[in-house]
Formats: sequence, structure tokens, C-alpha cells
Amino acid sequence: MLKIPDHQVAGHKAGVGKLGPLIDDSGRFYKPLQGDERGSNEAAFYTSFSSNTKIPDHITRFFPKFYGTQLVKASDGSGMQPHLVLQDLTFNRVNPSVMDVKIGSRTWAPQVLEDYINKCLKKDRESSSIYLGFRLSGLQVFEDRESGFWKPGKAEVKSLSADEVRLFLKKYVSSNTSSALDSKPDCAFASIVYGGSTGILSQLLELKAWFEDQTIYHFYSCSILMIFEKELALSGKGPCAEIKLVDFAHVFEGKGVIDHNFLGGLCSLIKFISEILTTPEDCAADDLLEDVQKSHIYSENGSV
Amino acid sequence: MLKIPDHQVAGHKAGVGKLGPLIDDSGRFYKPLQGDERGSNEAAFYTSFSSNTKIPDHITRFFPKFYGTQLVKASDGSGMQPHLVLQDLTFNRVNPSVMDVKIGSRTWAPQVLEDYINKCLKKDRESSSIYLGFRLSGLQVFEDRESGFWKPGKAEVKSLSADEVRLFLKKYVSSNTSSALDSKPDCAFASIVYGGSTGILSQLLELKAWFEDQTIYHFYSCSILMIFEKELALSGKGPCAEIKLVDFAHVFEGKGVIDHNFLGGLCSLIKFISEILTTPEDCAADDLLEDVQKSHIYSENGSV
Repeated sequence: MLKIPDHQVAGHKAGVGKLGPLIDDSGRFYKPLQGDERGSNEAAFYTSFSSNTKIPDHITRFFPKFYGTQLVKASDGSGMQPHLVLQDLTFNRVNPSVMDVKIGSRTWAPQVLEDYINKCLKKDRESSSIYLGFRLSGLQVFEDRESGFWKPGKAEVKSLSADEVRLFLKKYVSSNTSSALDSKPDCAFASIVYGGSTGILSQLLELKAWFEDQTIYHFYSCSILMIFEKELALSGKGPCAEIKLVDFAHVFEGKGVIDHNFLGGLCSLIKFISEILTTPEDCAADDLLEDVQKSHIYSENGSV
Repeated sequence: MLKIPDHQVAGHKAGVGKLGPLIDDSGRFYKPLQGDERGSNEAAFYTSFSSNTKIPDHITRFFPKFYGTQLVKASDGSGMQPHLVLQDLTFNRVNPSVMDVKIGSRTWAPQVLEDYINKCLKKDRESSSIYLGFRLSGLQVFEDRESGFWKPGKAEVKSLSADEVRLFLKKYVSSNTSSALDSKPDCAFASIVYGGSTGILSQLLELKAWFEDQTIYHFYSCSILMIFEKELALSGKGPCAEIKLVDFAHVFEGKGVIDHNFLGGLCSLIKFISEILTTPEDCAADDLLEDVQKSHIYSENGSV
């Protein structure tokens, strides 16, 4: 039995009469193949990438595992339809905080049709893509079991200013995400989610080094998902954070040239995250994480 | 007495009835202030940059020195006109080989007017900018005293394919530039011009590190000039190669965001140049430089 994913933050969503991705209970994610060339292009990318021996292991881990394509009952009731079978990236995750960042100031490949370019360029200019080299496509931040998730609307997150993006990236790793919307995010989890040798910044830098060199693929309109679990972070059982690339309907051959568009946007995101780590004075007290961890342990022991 | 520069490879050129830059005999370059906002914008950039104490010395050396603005007799005969007074980058250079590379897949700032964006976007798409993240704006390569310079046309160099750009970057550092147009460039000077601790690649990497961090300026439609002297290279009196940034009529405030557009294009150029250094098998024999140097010494001694 397939069901609608709980933790999708961007893209088409499955529903009554609506075609969208589904998951099973064994960790697989079924993404409907879009009927036009986007579907065939994404399937072609996964097929090429998963069999490409030139991609180093420390890079393939940033991509969802690919299990081929399969006919499954579509979510919109249209009957059996071809789906990409992929790794469910939030399988076994309890209350994951997820952020979808669409990378690149330009979401269109040079070789596509004029009309499509104009449509994308308009979106890129209206969103933060042109200015920042990336835009947020969606996010959910787990607060606590009582309040659940803070999940701002799509339209709201796409056209944030630089200062607002900075704020959202801080809220994503804060313990006071929305309970104190107007107050300063405390960045309580910044050092363990963004920082450290296995944190998100370190993973982004590995990805960057690959993009400085690889000339195989150009990734347009592709997203980096950032995922971590607040409760896992609080328990001290790291590493709890990971990045994954998703959405490859607009991947083209690199033909000997690096993907300077993706790389530029990635470097911009890296700069934003680095700044959060290097200027803790812009967040609440440095030692807050310790306080949060202590209070969590206390409450588990029933002493609070 | 001001005169027309000998080694300009791109941009408006001075001539009878034509407004263009002039030089004097003391190493100064007089660039006419464009009448519209481009002129005032470039003057504002030089004024800001030259007094900005946050720019490290190892970066300011990549920019022309700025001596203010001055009224001088314009080259087009229109009388006294305001000019930017800058360092003449080829002063004291004998037969410099020069390449002008306009950096960035996008030559327009997000905040400019629609018409200007459309004009630039068209040029970016028709040239190699969108594909490669940069385009050649002009070049001259010194061959020898008999043949002088190889100086391909502007129109020719702007819309090169990736393979053609690779070829031009090889020709730029070869001893058989045009004498054997259809044969393989020998890349005789690659290791001393592009390579080494003071070579062009090393300078580009220093610039890259700054662009990964700096959020003060965004440089649209700005060029990197690469300059070296074949005869100096042959004499073994290195370092003979340098890079300089020029053309700041479209520089805007970075406002806390890195210049991902310039950085992406710079990384693409770096990749092209790195490949020339790491795949010498694509050029002629590795030891050719030594042969060239020997033959030069022989001929100086009159023994050939």
C-alpha cells in the first residue's frame, strides 16, 4: 500500500485527483514520471548517474538511490502510471526538519526553447534566485511534539531578501523557531547541524569541490535538501544532518564545461551558512545548546 | 602629448572622430568618462575601491591604480572632456600578449531596466557567456618581430565553442600561434605563464578565494586581462604574467551577498586553464619550452 509522504516541503503533492509522489513502508519513494520530456529526462539522468563509474562514492551519497522505474497506481486515480522508484529520504526519520533550496541564479538551460526561458527568467527575477544564486522552495522546522512543525507557505519563502534568507537559515537551526517569531533566533543547533566535520557546511564544501571539477552534468532547477532531526540532535547521537540533491528533470550534459551556474549558487549558500557559524554574536548566547540539552535530559528524567 | 594605446584588444578605440582611451608617456591611461550613468558609476567604483581599507593588498594589485579624474583633450576632437586617470597596464611592456576575458554568464545587474536586460541577455546568449560563464572580448598574441601580433577579430572571439576557447587559451601560450593555424598549439609557455607559484592560474585562485568571501561589490560585465611577454618568458626573467580586472561601469553594491555570477565564471575559466596544465599530452612535447629557450639563446649569440 502506497501513501502520501509526510515530509514533502516542495513540488507537486499527491491528493484526491492530484498527481504526486507516494512512498511505501520499505523506504521507497515513487515519483510520477512527468509525461513530457521532463519525465524522460529525469529517468535518463538517474540511469546515467547510477551507472557512471566516474562519480566518487563521497558524491553519490548526496543523491537518492535509484531503483529503476515501475508502473504503480497513480495518486490522482488515473490508474497505473510509470514512476521513478527512488530512496525515501526521510524514511526512518522522526520529525525531520527539512529545507529545500533550489540552486542556481538561472533555472533554465541555454539550449531550451525561448518560451520556456522567458517563463523561468521571470520566476528567477521575481524570486531570490537572480540576487542570491538560490531560492528557498519550501521548508518545515520541527518545534516540539505539542506545536509540531513550523511550515511557512511556498509563496512566502521564494522571494525572500538576503536578510530574510539569513533569518530563515537561522530559524532552521534554532530552538525558538516560531514561538518567538519576532525575537532573535537562538541558533541553538547551528554548531551541530551546520558545523563540525560531518555537518551540513562540511558536506556542502565536499559538493563544491566536486562541482569545481566535474564537467559531466549541468543541473538546472535542481534542489539541495537539508535534513536533520531536532530530537536526534538533542540526544547527542550525531551525525544527524545530511544534504541530498533532488529534482533532475532539467539536467543536461556538461560537455567539458563546469556547471558554473550551480557552483556560483552553491558558493553563495555556503557563504550564508558560514556566516551563521562564524558570527554567533548575531544569535543568542553561545552556550544555549548546552542549556537546551540539559533541560531535555532533565525533562526525560522527569525532574522538570 | 597623449596618444592612442598600442595594445588595446577590446572596447571603444580612439581615432579620428572617435572617442576612446589615450595614454601618456609616464604610465597613465586616460579613459573617457561615458556621459551616462556608466561613466559616473565607474568613477564612483574607483573612488570607493581605492579608499576601501577592507580590500587586502594581494587583491588591490589585481586592479589598475586610480589617479582621479581629469579634463583632457578628447580623442574625437570634441575638446576637453572628463577622463578617468588610471594605470596604463601595458606601460613598459615590450610586445605584450594580451587576452580580455569578460567574466560572468550574466552581464546585467538584477536592478537595471528591462530594455537593458534584454539587450544584454541577447548578447550573453549569442556569445559564449551563458554556456561557459565567460567570453573572450579580444586578444593579441605576439609571434615574433617579423610577423608581429596575431589579433583575431572581435566578432570571431565572442561566440567560440568550449573547444575553440580551449584552443585559443592554448594558442595564447604557444610558440606556433598562427604560423601553423591548423596544427596543434605546442603550449610552449603554458607552464611558465599559466603555471607556477606566480603564474596566471595561481593569481586566478587568489582572486577566487576573495570572491568566495567578499560581499562588497558585484562586478557585471567586467573583464580579466591576462598579460605576458613572450620575449621576457623566453629570457627566463620571470614572473612575466599578470592578471588585471578592468571595466567597472556595471559594478553594484554586493549588500551582503557574494558575487556568485562572477565567481561561477571565474571557476569555469580556472578549470579551462587547469586542464591545459594537467593534460600536456594534448599539446606538443613537454620539453618544447626548453628547446625554444635554447634556440632563442643560440640566436642571440649569433650561433644560429
